[in-house]
Amino acid sequence: MSIYIDPEVAVSLRGYEVPERLGFGTAMAPVMFRAVCQDGCWSQGELIPYAPLTIDPAAKVLHYAQSCFEGMKAYRTAAGSIALFRPEKNAARMAYSAKRLCMPSVPESLFLDGVRTIAAYCANLVPGNRGESLYLRPFLIGTQADLTVSASTSYEFYVIASPSEAYHTGNMRLWVEREDARAAVGGTGDAKVGGNYAGSLLSVGRLKERGYDQSLWLNPADRSRVDELSGMNFFAVIEGKLHTPALSGSILEGITRNSLLKLARELGYDLVEGAIHIDTLLSQIASGVCTEAFACGTAAIISPISVIGDEAHSHELYQAPGPVAKALREALLDIQEGRAEDNFGWMQPVDPVNF
Amino acid sequence: MSIYIDPEVAVSLRGYEVPERLGFGTAMAPVMFRAVCQDGCWSQGELIPYAPLTIDPAAKVLHYAQSCFEGMKAYRTAAGSIALFRPEKNAARMAYSAKRLCMPSVPESLFLDGVRTIAAYCANLVPGNRGESLYLRPFLIGTQADLTVSASTSYEFYVIASPSEAYHTGNMRLWVEREDARAAVGGTGDAKVGGNYAGSLLSVGRLKERGYDQSLWLNPADRSRVDELSGMNFFAVIEGKLHTPALSGSILEGITRNSLLKLARELGYDLVEGAIHIDTLLSQIASGVCTEAFACGTAAIISPISVIGDEAHSHELYQAPGPVAKALREALLDIQEGRAEDNFGWMQPVDPVNF
Ligand SMILES: Cc1ncc(COP(=O)(O)O)c(C=O)c1O
Ligand SMILES: Cc1ncc(COP(=O)(O)O)c(C=O)c1O
Repeated sequence: MSIYIDPEVAVSLRGYEVPERLGFGTAMAPVMFRAVCQDGCWSQGELIPYAPLTIDPAAKVLHYAQSCFEGMKAYRTAAGSIALFRPEKNAARMAYSAKRLCMPSVPESLFLDGVRTIAAYCANLVPGNRGESLYLRPFLIGTQADLTVSASTSYEFYVIASPSEAYHTGNMRLWVEREDARAAVGGTGDAKVGGNYAGSLLSVGRLKERGYDQSLWLNPADRSRVDELSGMNFFAVIEGKLHTPALSGSILEGITRNSLLKLARELGYDLVEGAIHIDTLLSQIASGVCTEAFACGTAAIISPISVIGDEAHSHELYQAPGPVAKALREALLDIQEGRAEDNFGWMQPVDPVNF
Repeated sequence: MSIYIDPEVAVSLRGYEVPERLGFGTAMAPVMFRAVCQDGCWSQGELIPYAPLTIDPAAKVLHYAQSCFEGMKAYRTAAGSIALFRPEKNAARMAYSAKRLCMPSVPESLFLDGVRTIAAYCANLVPGNRGESLYLRPFLIGTQADLTVSASTSYEFYVIASPSEAYHTGNMRLWVEREDARAAVGGTGDAKVGGNYAGSLLSVGRLKERGYDQSLWLNPADRSRVDELSGMNFFAVIEGKLHTPALSGSILEGITRNSLLKLARELGYDLVEGAIHIDTLLSQIASGVCTEAFACGTAAIISPISVIGDEAHSHELYQAPGPVAKALREALLDIQEGRAEDNFGWMQPVDPVNF
């Protein structure tokens, strides 16, 4: 289907100046992509000026959190061109998330139209320093005005964009969260839905008071094993092998995680996708058997972990960032920013639109 | 603090006609109450015409489900006056829910101002047949435009209202949900937050295909015990005693549940607040030891359960509605609708505002 480009889009883009200090996810591009779904039928996609949404006070998204989202980036390559990283993976994950909440999937073609169109029109807004990008945020919300607890009959899909730095976490101090859970067995932990994030905020508030930065969530069934962080997957180097928790149903399958596993194999690391028992891990850090740990995700790429602690322990990692984290970060960014051969076929060039 | 009444409110109310067929939560009153919180400071409350909200596309509520809500009713009494039922309980529960999601509490006085003001101005809209009411929906949403996963710095509190029938469920067929969970141990199940409801929709979709009406959720730790329904608490009459699951951390403490326990004690029933093992319950239904079961909540009041089933069983309850459900429903409605003495001091009259 063709995409409608609002005549105001050119005006908005011409009048826009990228702020000097970018931060992450705060400066918003002046345009957005939008499509509407009524009773299962999708409208044409349209690129329109960024503007507040008008949402009925009784809309399902506001009361019952019927919403899911994605996070991805448009990169400026070394050659100056613009490219997306594995966007079909985001389309597929969003379809999965939508299904978990009884929302219609955004068709892959519409999803890709959305992210490509906004990247193409915002090509001049994609910053080009190492780790910088145009962060893209596709999201889908239930908009029907009706207070009964049931799936919406109408939905709106948007892609908004934010010229961003890498999400700088610095060396992260992780608090082992043994009280709260971000996800239930049989819950929504493996889908990218709003409710998972709302529930994680309290833990973060508590650990900040204790001088920590991020929660390390455990498996909800018996909280004996590492699941992930609130917005990143977890890796550790133990006896020289690269370990990451196997997908358990309560872990979001990160596209960075998936890509790092492939890259690490190519780079010759020994990989273990399996259970990481938290108490074992803590003693392996204490004894120096676990030499490094890091987290990964689209926003933060790879973030080194310097400390993992709980009430009883606070163990410092041997190296942060360690050599494996550094090597993988370089290898991934080199592909994303076009300095290395894209052997996996991950990058999808976007043709800039000039106006 | 005084409440600002928009001059358009009178116009909106004068022009409004209550629809003939009410339904539940679909017809919205033409006014709403609103207050805004910025960096912890609450604005004056205001009554304004019902209108779409303008929400930034990057607002936290849309992405991270930072939202909580309440459900309560303004009743027309037999004498024609208007009254609220235990509104301070809703204020307290909303404060608890807000805290769970790192949101500022709506001060009790502001919450009560909100529900009283809208009830007072909408007095003419409160329908008066048995079980009918003006359903009130207070809700609080995080509105800051910022894509980082963190608590919002700005919030909006609304109360909207809907002239409604009792939420008619008829005799309900419950499906024992053994796969999905609506809440985690250490999750948000005891708070009234959007994410709990989004996660429950898929289960309901599945059971409808099997000819059931509602999910019966089990305790998330080992799914051996009854927790509640998606929007109602659970009761069963077993060997003549009235049983309801004890509050477990994953159950929402219903105000109807709390009130029925007090009423039932007054009416002389033997009460047991404790574990209801699902397999025991199923065999007690099969053997006739469990004679009736029902669910309760503000919207549906008391709804009889006619069948509880799963893959292996489908057990019919001896009576639906049974005598206990009928007696409690009558006793509660008689207080709410002013036909019986309000010995508990539950009802709070609201003075109608004429204009
Ligand atoms: C809970 C959670 N885990 C992991 C990730 C990492 O996924 P990805 O690598 O696709 O960004 C994210 C976010 O993006 C997340 O929200
Ligand atoms: C999950 C859940 N349980 C129980 C209830 C019943 O609570 P109340 O009696 O306060 O309406 C509700 C809704 O109102 C609910 O959403």
